[in-house]
Amino acid sequence: MTIPQVQLLLTGNELMSGDVIDSNSAMIAQQLQEVGIEVQRRVTIADNLTNLVNEIKAISQQCDILIINGGLGPTVDDMTAQALAIAANKALKRHPKAMEHLHNWCKQRNYTLSDENKKQADLPEGCQLIANTLGSAVGFYLQINHCDIYCTPGVPSELKKMMADEIIPLLTKSIPDNQQTKVKKMQVFGLGESTIQRLINKQLPTWPTEIELGFRAAIPLIEVKLTSRSSQAEKQVALWYKKLQQLLGDHIIGEEKAKLNQVVVKLLSQQHKKLTIAESCTGGLIASQITQVSGASQVFEAGFVTYSNTMKTKLLQVDEKTLQQYGAVSKETVIAMVKGALTISQADYGIAVSGVAGPTGGSTEKPVGMVWIAWGSLDNINTVCLYIPNSRQYFQHFVSSASLDLIRRILIKSTEVPAYISERQFKH
Amino acid sequence: MTIPQVQLLLTGNELMSGDVIDSNSAMIAQQLQEVGIEVQRRVTIADNLTNLVNEIKAISQQCDILIINGGLGPTVDDMTAQALAIAANKALKRHPKAMEHLHNWCKQRNYTLSDENKKQADLPEGCQLIANTLGSAVGFYLQINHCDIYCTPGVPSELKKMMADEIIPLLTKSIPDNQQTKVKKMQVFGLGESTIQRLINKQLPTWPTEIELGFRAAIPLIEVKLTSRSSQAEKQVALWYKKLQQLLGDHIIGEEKAKLNQVVVKLLSQQHKKLTIAESCTGGLIASQITQVSGASQVFEAGFVTYSNTMKTKLLQVDEKTLQQYGAVSKETVIAMVKGALTISQADYGIAVSGVAGPTGGSTEKPVGMVWIAWGSLDNINTVCLYIPNSRQYFQHFVSSASLDLIRRILIKSTEVPAYISERQFKH
Repeated sequence: MTIPQVQLLLTGNELMSGDVIDSNSAMIAQQLQEVGIEVQRRVTIADNLTNLVNEIKAISQQCDILIINGGLGPTVDDMTAQALAIAANKALKRHPKAMEHLHNWCKQRNYTLSDENKKQADLPEGCQLIANTLGSAVGFYLQINHCDIYCTPGVPSELKKMMADEIIPLLTKSIPDNQQTKVKKMQVFGLGESTIQRLINKQLPTWPTEIELGFRAAIPLIEVKLTSRSSQAEKQVALWYKKLQQLLGDHIIGEEKAKLNQVVVKLLSQQHKKLTIAESCTGGLIASQITQVSGASQVFEAGFVTYSNTMKTKLLQVDEKTLQQYGAVSKETVIAMVKGALTISQADYGIAVSGVAGPTGGSTEKPVGMVWIAWGSLDNINTVCLYIPNSRQYFQHFVSSASLDLIRRILIKSTEVPAYISERQFKH
Repeated sequence: MTIPQVQLLLTGNELMSGDVIDSNSAMIAQQLQEVGIEVQRRVTIADNLTNLVNEIKAISQQCDILIINGGLGPTVDDMTAQALAIAANKALKRHPKAMEHLHNWCKQRNYTLSDENKKQADLPEGCQLIANTLGSAVGFYLQINHCDIYCTPGVPSELKKMMADEIIPLLTKSIPDNQQTKVKKMQVFGLGESTIQRLINKQLPTWPTEIELGFRAAIPLIEVKLTSRSSQAEKQVALWYKKLQQLLGDHIIGEEKAKLNQVVVKLLSQQHKKLTIAESCTGGLIASQITQVSGASQVFEAGFVTYSNTMKTKLLQVDEKTLQQYGAVSKETVIAMVKGALTISQADYGIAVSGVAGPTGGSTEKPVGMVWIAWGSLDNINTVCLYIPNSRQYFQHFVSSASLDLIRRILIKSTEVPAYISERQFKH
């Protein structure tokens, strides 16, 4: 038995209109991927009986397994059972065990079993029930054209449990261990997708074809994913992951689902250090990213959002003369801001940013996208001037992430120059 | 010309693996729905050239319009242009105008144009370019089997702009006025979907069947959408929108895509007032939401992120005795915080929040989800204690939004009690 070909068929008017964003198919795909099964294709259609029947017929001739999601509810636009019966050329019959489930389900909740609900027990003759312990809609299984068809409920929590407890065990029974997929991910900051691809082409020209390389932009991070289905998958992925680690160096934030803010809070916490943040153009975003992490209070006491010059002086003791002579967006001002924040908060490390987020407020000398960052400790303050001429939103997110990354690099004692400093430095 | 038959084809390994939840197709569907075009079917597949070619060929024989999303990037797994060329039996050629776009795009960002990026200019011969003003990947149009095929980028912001500015105008040119759909939306804060539906059932029982009512949770806002395709659509939607306005009152933030932060900045700006924010449990999120809005500097000078008790005293002059006697999460502390922020910043209005975001740090007396908010001006400070026992992320977002909403209600001189105060008040 080899890895089966799997397709998904989703039905729902709300999915087609865009009123609901489909997260069910991602959930199914991830659950299947964990046991080495990949979804090849998915089709999403509105609740229309004819179209549903035609899709089921067509897909059943293309693959080994079809998972249908949605259309098991009590209302008139729920028609999966009916469509499957027509496609399989079977009668729709009231299923005694499904009725029993409905009776029990209503009894537990003190509901009266309505005629609408009874419709949920009308299933294609000869199908096998799949238990739904969370909802009224039972799942069911039927084979058409040698394709195994599983019908699942649209409610995410019910679907998730039915997949994990009932369907996945049925599907994996037949897959041998040595055919399972190995997946490993890393999160990268400061290198674009094309830069990473170029580096690999140049520095790792013998990259094995069996290891599929995938990129996902989770702005401003890039997720790099290594997938292998070879018999040597585990060993091979580990080896090439290591080579990739050496290639990308400290641009790697961490493994799997690592996030910059979580990594920074963890490092600070481990080293018993505290961070303070003085923000102008990011307006509280850096502080907000740090405090999103549970446990931030161990490493963060104070943030200063000093949007005006007056407040830079009042809150952070930036000399009025500095602001007059060099302006708010200057090396001198961010140094004074970070010194002020460090002195007042008595934190170990500090970040200060001041820039032109745009879309207005730029000048020839200080255009939209220009930003000064100062970071470090009172005895060792670094500065850089970057140029990020994008949307206001992107600018604020990139500057926040770069600031956190610069603190991360201090904490891991990195000696590398990050690519975003060599590539995106503002040319005066 | 009647309403065209539309299908979507999405390509991306990350979509199939479940690493990315597809929100692009919902966005496309909503944009099309606003001009009365419905999507009939969508197919999602991994980045595989053969499968892509086959899907394009098959779909082009089934509908009038095919929108392909994704696969326009610079890497090897981006193969939409190549697949379309094969399906159309055309050569892949370097497009001079696409090259020009790439050159300009790189020049503006001080990037070197790499060979990988040049691949983005290799397009099917005879295709028409569709401008992408935000990214490197140009869109393009080609007809196969009398089906109009539009290729669009996977980056959501780029897709959204290309759809709105380029593709929608092309598609609507041929639809007569009397077949156009009328859609009107409002954004609501503080009332749930089921509460709104219940209010409508009770207070507006004669709601016409021709006006479809849709809800979309854009947490923490709810978007309420009225859609009509009747010949009286325009008049009818306007009338019932007005009735809904009277029913939901000041819970309505604004029309169409109104956002709380934008509305608050606009109102402050119109009234020449300034806001200051003192945050504990929201950790900079409220300030960050205000400063996301371009022009925030007119209405916002300073924010204080005082995460520790020491910093509440040092930055906001909260009396140490107040903190000792009542604790950080108390009415007395938030009043002192907002007074401190107003005094130091000399702003007209202020917000102060202090609560238990969780998941740890709660006690029997002050459980996770409890939050004190103080808001108003120095001569009129209001307070409320809410209970939002959800995830840390939801808690922070809800508290930020409620805070901004309370300021909005002062600015519009609202005399209503918001539902979230009557329903979610903490019971001591």
